[in-house]
Amino acid sequence: MARGKFITLEGGEGVGKSTNLRYLTDWLRAREIPFVQTREPGGTPLAEQLRELLLCRREERVDPTAELLMVFAARAQHLAEVILPALERGEWVVCDRFTDATYAYQGGGRQLDLGLIAQLEQTVQGGLRPDRILLLDLDPQVGLERASRTGAADRFESEQLAFFRRVREAYLARAEADPARYAVIDAAQALESVQRDLGEQLESLLD
Amino acid sequence: MARGKFITLEGGEGVGKSTNLRYLTDWLRAREIPFVQTREPGGTPLAEQLRELLLCRREERVDPTAELLMVFAARAQHLAEVILPALERGEWVVCDRFTDATYAYQGGGRQLDLGLIAQLEQTVQGGLRPDRILLLDLDPQVGLERASRTGAADRFESEQLAFFRRVREAYLARAEADPARYAVIDAAQALESVQRDLGEQLESLLD
Repeated sequence: MARGKFITLEGGEGVGKSTNLRYLTDWLRAREIPFVQTREPGGTPLAEQLRELLLCRREERVDPTAELLMVFAARAQHLAEVILPALERGEWVVCDRFTDATYAYQGGGRQLDLGLIAQLEQTVQGGLRPDRILLLDLDPQVGLERASRTGAADRFESEQLAFFRRVREAYLARAEADPARYAVIDAAQALESVQRDLGEQLESLLD
Repeated sequence: MARGKFITLEGGEGVGKSTNLRYLTDWLRAREIPFVQTREPGGTPLAEQLRELLLCRREERVDPTAELLMVFAARAQHLAEVILPALERGEWVVCDRFTDATYAYQGGGRQLDLGLIAQLEQTVQGGLRPDRILLLDLDPQVGLERASRTGAADRFESEQLAFFRRVREAYLARAEADPARYAVIDAAQALESVQRDLGEQLESLLD
């Protein structure tokens, strides 16, 4: 049986990930392609508990390396328990954020060493990479304004604009370095145009 | 000001760590040496939350690499927030388990690659190592019998005897490789003899 495709949806705050995730899963359902929809950090009971520890605002300063190791711990669990078994069953996996978010938020945002992130990626993933990374790209000033309408900010969302500018730059730098794997989608377009672009990307993955 | 000494107390289940930790801290108090007593995994609010996630028994299989990364995440936080500031203030740090426990439990017990543990140790600790590692050594069959009298077993305590034999071997192998830093203390002795040995070790650390 053919291995499933591994699709990740990436982007900063307020780029429209939730709405567009629904579009992706509706598209797969309409074509009767079996899939698992999941997210990072999270996706298993333990990984979701780690997500809560990562996102909650706290008095204590969080050491950036501790944060990075928690992200990869959740990822190791998620891969072993959910992502790899699904791909091996021939199902597609649609994941709301993955390792590109680590390069963007911990590498770009927190300015951690990209070599360390690459080393942990190798340890946790071996050779596994997404088949297609759908990057919803938007000026962070616009994104933060959109995101501010959706409730209280978590520990990441409460960062400053300069942080989110670095996040965006890190995402775009990765896309530029590997254009075959990344699709940069202009999230400032009308929703129908964003979804037409997403649909084209999915079509291109069908054998 | 002189940097404080960093002392860790190590050993498997039922070796008497709690009783002997009290002896160590009483010894320091009697000599009016300022110190911080702490433990791993744990020692800060976030690191204690990670400890709970690590120890609790769960339906879900825990991926060994995820476990290892959680241990080092807690350690990075503990070092940044508690251990390094205390040593820099000139205080001693007495820590109930540290990285040797990772080599013993995740390396020996879970049989994870020791090279990976060493790489994470370097990432998280740089050159920091304990000044003295006090290893309470005991046949795990005896230790498990002692430990079984102290309440419900956590996720580690519920492992099998073969696991704890590997833990002990890993601890002893580390002590043998660096005898200047390690003191192997026979925890099968009468308590007074164990504590005489511990006292001698502390004396030898005074300038």
